[in-house]
Amino acid sequence: MKTLRELYKEARYPLAGNGPRNIGVTKKVFEPLDPEMDGDMYGTGVLMGSFEKKMAQVLGKEAAVFFPSGTMAQQVAMRIHCDRKGVNRVAYHPYCHMEIHEQDGLKELHKIESLLLGEEDRLFTLDDIKALVDSEKIQSLDQDLACIVHELPQREIGGQLPELQDLGAMLAYASDHQIVNHLDGARLFECLPYYKCQAKDIAGLFDTVYISFYKGIGGVAGAVLAGDEDFVKEAKIWKRRHGGDLICLYPYVLTSDYYYELRKDRMAHYWEGAKKLAGMFNDIEGVTTVPEIPVTNMFHVYLDAESENVEKAIRKVMEEESLAISGYVREKGGKSTFEISIGDAFDAVSDDKLKASFELFNNALAE
Amino acid sequence: MKTLRELYKEARYPLAGNGPRNIGVTKKVFEPLDPEMDGDMYGTGVLMGSFEKKMAQVLGKEAAVFFPSGTMAQQVAMRIHCDRKGVNRVAYHPYCHMEIHEQDGLKELHKIESLLLGEEDRLFTLDDIKALVDSEKIQSLDQDLACIVHELPQREIGGQLPELQDLGAMLAYASDHQIVNHLDGARLFECLPYYKCQAKDIAGLFDTVYISFYKGIGGVAGAVLAGDEDFVKEAKIWKRRHGGDLICLYPYVLTSDYYYELRKDRMAHYWEGAKKLAGMFNDIEGVTTVPEIPVTNMFHVYLDAESENVEKAIRKVMEEESLAISGYVREKGGKSTFEISIGDAFDAVSDDKLKASFELFNNALAE
Repeated sequence: MKTLRELYKEARYPLAGNGPRNIGVTKKVFEPLDPEMDGDMYGTGVLMGSFEKKMAQVLGKEAAVFFPSGTMAQQVAMRIHCDRKGVNRVAYHPYCHMEIHEQDGLKELHKIESLLLGEEDRLFTLDDIKALVDSEKIQSLDQDLACIVHELPQREIGGQLPELQDLGAMLAYASDHQIVNHLDGARLFECLPYYKCQAKDIAGLFDTVYISFYKGIGGVAGAVLAGDEDFVKEAKIWKRRHGGDLICLYPYVLTSDYYYELRKDRMAHYWEGAKKLAGMFNDIEGVTTVPEIPVTNMFHVYLDAESENVEKAIRKVMEEESLAISGYVREKGGKSTFEISIGDAFDAVSDDKLKASFELFNNALAE
Repeated sequence: MKTLRELYKEARYPLAGNGPRNIGVTKKVFEPLDPEMDGDMYGTGVLMGSFEKKMAQVLGKEAAVFFPSGTMAQQVAMRIHCDRKGVNRVAYHPYCHMEIHEQDGLKELHKIESLLLGEEDRLFTLDDIKALVDSEKIQSLDQDLACIVHELPQREIGGQLPELQDLGAMLAYASDHQIVNHLDGARLFECLPYYKCQAKDIAGLFDTVYISFYKGIGGVAGAVLAGDEDFVKEAKIWKRRHGGDLICLYPYVLTSDYYYELRKDRMAHYWEGAKKLAGMFNDIEGVTTVPEIPVTNMFHVYLDAESENVEKAIRKVMEEESLAISGYVREKGGKSTFEISIGDAFDAVSDDKLKASFELFNNALAE
């Protein structure tokens, strides 16, 4: 029997994403380009330089450097901030990418300790930052903590966002305590419609920022780290140390630029899709979304049903309507759950198709 | 005035390399491919798996893992070997890539100390390995050294190679002392014609091996690290920690495979070209090559002349014959020097063109 993942890939109507991540995503970008166009070489050249400059401007920072991955970019940012303060300790959400998805690279490579802010299932607050000093791990925010990382939106809890006023208060409090503010902006563009502002307005609140090109943007791989010139100069040295200063990164630079231009202005449209779809999930008994009303293009679906039954219902919709609700189902806290991030693919799903599919899904769950 | 590098790029007849490293190098590979072909995803998928398996077989190892860069692959290898022995110390040639080209990543990221074997301008020998215990840095080879790295060929001294018998003696001695032998095989394929054997015959002498796809192979970027299954399993964890486990590495995998197939059997031909060209340099008074007779596709040229004069002579040949001898001139030990690595480009240079260009170069140097 085919896995849900395989079925999802074959389905005509996937709810999420920007289409299959096949090699055509790269091929399409190269097709119209002049083959004699210069590539980059160890981070130099017009192609690399102009994209880094463009992204620095988009983010309102002095400088930017392209990285093969966000994992590398953020560890490098943490290392620089820690080295500068002489304190090997940063704080972030319990579901921060560095905490749960990087095989502890931050700790194993950089010997940097992490303090977890607040609780897993909610955004952290100013009170959580203040509470760090009572945690016995640190005596003084000013002296014992180098950096606080804010992930906007917070992916692992459905892409939730703090209100700008609350965010501003946290950032100001940290700055007052000589703590650097870093933005994990892997999905920064996705939250701009909710915040009703430009990338540089949000990035400008932080000392340093990382953005990714393969989430909502839908590129192949790649990231940018931005900050002031000294910071970026140091980041380039660490990029080489990490083995990220490849002789050529142009396949990622070219595709990042292409899909950035293609999708940067579609985020509000994706958000509309997410709100509509989340509403349809919430209309099913025993099904809720987090957040209830999405604030970006993404949300998490929670179902009061065994994952086996949810899988069966998804398969049924896939077989009868060729509509793919999810490529996996996880169990969490006694519920079944999966994530949905709206992209271009949702445009191909008609209202009739949606209605029929959700009726079928509802009935299949109730069986 | 254009730089030598720029002129080199524009010249019709460059002596070295496989042609310009423009984006066409990637485009050409994608052009005939089906856009619906699956890419890789975080190191998984048929595309990645089959290439890794193929390279493991080529190298005669149980397993292999694709890395974005050799810098990352080798640091990871060193870290695993050091952690296993509980000794943070490795030994290699003074011109090892990890020592001079990686901004001390090995030390800064992994806290691994390096011992330098022998002297800069020659290959190291068994005596140099034995002499380590007299260096006051270590008491016992068995207890104080985790790994010895052999770079075949030794790039920074013109691509010199130890005789197989001498190499075998060094490797056996290290093994007898519980030291792991690692092969920096960035240019492994380039030295196979001299050794008259296959890649797996050389790689098989070592515990672990790294190979590169953008030196003689002429790919875009990428490396493979191979060894036994446990080693590769651990290497994949470190690859993620380093930020090298990209969501998609297929642009490098596809181009690596393509250019590997294109050029793996051309190395003897490149070597013939290198010997012929080195002979022509050695025929000029005040010019010598290292090695005098190349043992791979590469050699270094040394000139008893100021770098300014050498640059002028190179420019003259470039202007009048459109033949590019080098894109740079360095000063070293009171001489001027540059490196030449023969690839496909040399095939386009006729004997007449060579003869006329070298007469002109000779005269220009004598002016």
